[in-house]
Amino acid sequence: MNASQPVLALSGGVGGAKLAFGLYRILPPDTLTVVANTGDDFEHLGLSISPDLDTLLYTLSGQANSELGWGRQGETWTFMAALEKLGGQTWFRLGDGDLATHVERTRRLTAGESLSAVIDDFRRRCGIAARLLPMSDDRVRTRLDTDQGWLEFQDYFVRLRCEPRVRQLEFAGSQTAQPHRDFLTALGNPELRAVVICPSNPFISIDPILCIPGVREALRLCRAPVVAVSPIIGGKAVKGPTAKMMGELGLPVDAAAVARHYREFLDLYIADEADRDAVGELDIPTVLAPTLMLTLEDREALARIVLDAADRARR
Amino acid sequence: MNASQPVLALSGGVGGAKLAFGLYRILPPDTLTVVANTGDDFEHLGLSISPDLDTLLYTLSGQANSELGWGRQGETWTFMAALEKLGGQTWFRLGDGDLATHVERTRRLTAGESLSAVIDDFRRRCGIAARLLPMSDDRVRTRLDTDQGWLEFQDYFVRLRCEPRVRQLEFAGSQTAQPHRDFLTALGNPELRAVVICPSNPFISIDPILCIPGVREALRLCRAPVVAVSPIIGGKAVKGPTAKMMGELGLPVDAAAVARHYREFLDLYIADEADRDAVGELDIPTVLAPTLMLTLEDREALARIVLDAADRARR
Repeated sequence: MNASQPVLALSGGVGGAKLAFGLYRILPPDTLTVVANTGDDFEHLGLSISPDLDTLLYTLSGQANSELGWGRQGETWTFMAALEKLGGQTWFRLGDGDLATHVERTRRLTAGESLSAVIDDFRRRCGIAARLLPMSDDRVRTRLDTDQGWLEFQDYFVRLRCEPRVRQLEFAGSQTAQPHRDFLTALGNPELRAVVICPSNPFISIDPILCIPGVREALRLCRAPVVAVSPIIGGKAVKGPTAKMMGELGLPVDAAAVARHYREFLDLYIADEADRDAVGELDIPTVLAPTLMLTLEDREALARIVLDAADRARR
Repeated sequence: MNASQPVLALSGGVGGAKLAFGLYRILPPDTLTVVANTGDDFEHLGLSISPDLDTLLYTLSGQANSELGWGRQGETWTFMAALEKLGGQTWFRLGDGDLATHVERTRRLTAGESLSAVIDDFRRRCGIAARLLPMSDDRVRTRLDTDQGWLEFQDYFVRLRCEPRVRQLEFAGSQTAQPHRDFLTALGNPELRAVVICPSNPFISIDPILCIPGVREALRLCRAPVVAVSPIIGGKAVKGPTAKMMGELGLPVDAAAVARHYREFLDLYIADEADRDAVGELDIPTVLAPTLMLTLEDREALARIVLDAADRARR
């Protein structure tokens, strides 16, 4: 391999974006393409919101809010306070700066632009040299069958704080959605160095990407090593409902179950050192590493481990 | 008269809202109805914006920004800065708190509510005991024929800073618009104490109201005195393009010309003491008063003068 070979990452929001940022930092400019889940996208207050794309946009441009763990740094909340006073819905917190992304995206989508074209312009304007791609320009919406009935994703995730027990998920629209052309082109590129499945929730962040017709097959046929990084550390999720959801879906709550979830196309798994025992029986090549990313250095170090392991797997 | 008789005010934005606030402060709660110009309304960034209604909303609820002279107090501008970074249009300045009004209004209009219903809810939530009515729930749009061709109102007013020379105005949609029912009901109410035409620009703030079918006739037939307050002080406009526009439209730039503009229904005119000579030849009963409203006390004092003069005119 050489350092200028392209790398493709699949990512959801916060956790995945941390590794995507690590990859972006250590790779030459223009080398990385990040494909984002858009199953979480929704319409709220008349605005089109793409939470995972926006988290990647803010993270890769260094604008992410490190205190909150989501949203933009230097954010203000005047809109939300005024909206509350007018009786508007406030369960989904929209910062004043974040709102610009939603208002401008909505305006451009309404004018007929594709989501990928809008995001490509946004990431350039934010100074991001990596490509940032929605998994599809078609509408896919994650819905969850729970003990409170079928719920839209953000109802479950934000409004109800992941409290309902999940029985199954569906990705409405995925059967007829087309993967973004550049996504399939990247997977078929003989120069591709690695496909990195970031440490995102497999069910709500990665499965929507995988469920788009043609994606699983392209991953199976891909000549580059497909490497997944465990979102489970020491049997627990760093953040979010991954572990809770695994239990509810009848899976063992451990790092090995995530690898098995991806087994049809997975060449290599990166699990945390704390999960040595859990992955001991796994019949997928596994590298143990410190996977908790608290600092920028952690992100870059994990990105290096992932790429080094992928390069070795290729030989 | 007694103090609980209803008063109706017609108003545009900033200047008119100052007197409307004075009236609101000195009248018993629930006595005042303010009918606002909506010819300035426009769609921007996908949002429905009603500048005059919003200025009245913020002014009457004590939320107006006294330093800027427009918008909300305690406003922040994070949205605008982020929008500029994304390449969005920034010529119309939208504060973060102001944006909540536009987003929530747009959401409710899209859901099928009338503008008057939305504004009535907003004013209640903002603690305003006065009624606040759009002149019509139908769409009326002020356009200006200028030396740069026909312009939409906000293009002329904000983007081009009133620099083009105005030749004529049109209020697109006004022929088929219906005045708000409560507006006509208020004008026909035998208990009505006075109709106050606030010191707003006659051409761009009051004429759109007057051009809606039935309004001029209702003003002519109205049993209460119709009183206008001059927006011209010492031959100049306090703010905005009123004087410039009068010159461009071939009118003398003085306080008397405004009274003549309203002559078909005007019972009484309040002009500034500085314009004593200008209104000397006027064949409409005129009261001279200090009309410059710099402080809250100024607004209340002028409101008292207006109502006292109206009460005397009635007898």
